[in-house]
Amino acid sequence: MSSQHSGLITSRNHTLLRPIRSLHRRDERDRAGLFFAEGIRFVAQAMEARSRIQTLLIAPELLTHPVGKKLAHRLERSGIRTLRVSAEVFHSVALTDNPQGIGIVVCQRKEALSSAKIDPGAYWLAVRHLQSAGNLGTILRTCDAAGAAGLILVDSDVDPYDPSAVRATMGALFRQRIYTTTARELARWKSLHGVQIVGTSPMADVDYQQHRYVGSTVLFLGSERRGLGPHEQALCDTLVRIPMVGSSDSLNVAVAAGVLVYELFNQRRAPALDRGGRLSGCLAAER
Amino acid sequence: MSSQHSGLITSRNHTLLRPIRSLHRRDERDRAGLFFAEGIRFVAQAMEARSRIQTLLIAPELLTHPVGKKLAHRLERSGIRTLRVSAEVFHSVALTDNPQGIGIVVCQRKEALSSAKIDPGAYWLAVRHLQSAGNLGTILRTCDAAGAAGLILVDSDVDPYDPSAVRATMGALFRQRIYTTTARELARWKSLHGVQIVGTSPMADVDYQQHRYVGSTVLFLGSERRGLGPHEQALCDTLVRIPMVGSSDSLNVAVAAGVLVYELFNQRRAPALDRGGRLSGCLAAER
Repeated sequence: MSSQHSGLITSRNHTLLRPIRSLHRRDERDRAGLFFAEGIRFVAQAMEARSRIQTLLIAPELLTHPVGKKLAHRLERSGIRTLRVSAEVFHSVALTDNPQGIGIVVCQRKEALSSAKIDPGAYWLAVRHLQSAGNLGTILRTCDAAGAAGLILVDSDVDPYDPSAVRATMGALFRQRIYTTTARELARWKSLHGVQIVGTSPMADVDYQQHRYVGSTVLFLGSERRGLGPHEQALCDTLVRIPMVGSSDSLNVAVAAGVLVYELFNQRRAPALDRGGRLSGCLAAER
Repeated sequence: MSSQHSGLITSRNHTLLRPIRSLHRRDERDRAGLFFAEGIRFVAQAMEARSRIQTLLIAPELLTHPVGKKLAHRLERSGIRTLRVSAEVFHSVALTDNPQGIGIVVCQRKEALSSAKIDPGAYWLAVRHLQSAGNLGTILRTCDAAGAAGLILVDSDVDPYDPSAVRATMGALFRQRIYTTTARELARWKSLHGVQIVGTSPMADVDYQQHRYVGSTVLFLGSERRGLGPHEQALCDTLVRIPMVGSSDSLNVAVAAGVLVYELFNQRRAPALDRGGRLSGCLAAER
């Protein structure tokens, strides 16, 4: 916290900026255990979720929105290291076209699956061999909207802290828990805790709406191209099929996740649905 | 069809390639009424859907897959203008990293909404102010999987023939009908044909699962950032809400479309679901 820089940084090559810009690269993110997020929405959500913010980057010229200014002020007052940069320098760090002049360096927060809290009604989404960071981010956003307990990355290469993943989460990344595990560990963990794993396959006999998603459940999704391979299918207690008509053979993986997650969510909230279609209090309590 | 070029084109700047490469640009696509699609999967689906293919582009060096070779052979035999190019030239036209050496120039097929066939059970997805071509393509893919009658672009700027839209459809583009209209025309058309329009809003009173999607229906989606504006909401007969928990306020628009489309699809296929969860024949007939 001592390397506070009081003046306005106007050089792209300033030594304090290099480590921030390096976070666009996977190896540097992994090494540092940090990531960069940009925009008022993201900063607000990181603060609300009490994420560990390491550095605040602001470009006073660009930061014209009163909400953004207020956030920056609060962060500075709380003692977070703050770097002020020119608009041109901010553009060189931000990856968006019209940056709002506020960004943060945040600590990653991946956990081992063994640390997951097993509530009887908890459910998680697990992915293996997923390719696209954008899809991962979109899935995380859906998990958050439908009250999942977290995302499980199984032997996974795709990085939830990739800039395009972060962007696609729309801030859900700060709220959702992210667990890492191996296929072997997942098998042990599910047996130990009596968690059911439900996977999807176009060949499955069971319609995804016929299955009852009771108890602790993992919804398991495979790669964009091939879905779940035989290895992953063997981990599943049940394989379900999302029906399709015509000659279609697949949905986008993030859409399939959404359809599946909402089926589970709807089955569980069904008793809470009154006639007007509003949710009663019990769902919030369940969370 | 007379400009058959018998030799192998090895120059990137060959005059026959310029019009193909220009199709990466929106204005040129609009002007020519054509688009470019690449890869075995796409070519196979275009042929199956009897799309009007104007030109076949192949790079014999790259086209090693027997299925791809067979498709190329069939297209050539049917008299379609064929250009043979070197691998390097193909790379300069294709936008993918590992092209399979086969691509096609295809006629666009947008129709006026007035030409849509109004079946009592038909449903469409309509979008207005959508920004991302990728989201549009993903929505088209979902429409196709769940038996929609087509996609309606309302005063829409996003191009379903944009390379990233085409890619995201995974070939569904060749099967789904695409209608263009204005908000004013849509209002007239829905009154004339008794079509209900269902929109989404986080403020809506009606839960999306409580609503009965009977008769001809349009599911209406707005922009990624703001959803449906007051203008579009006024066009809707019903506004429904997809419930969320926690502090989430939205889903990715293509995920929201998937959740909504599958609710309609599930309501309609429900009587066809037997105990084993398999669909009986009536759903196919409905289509």
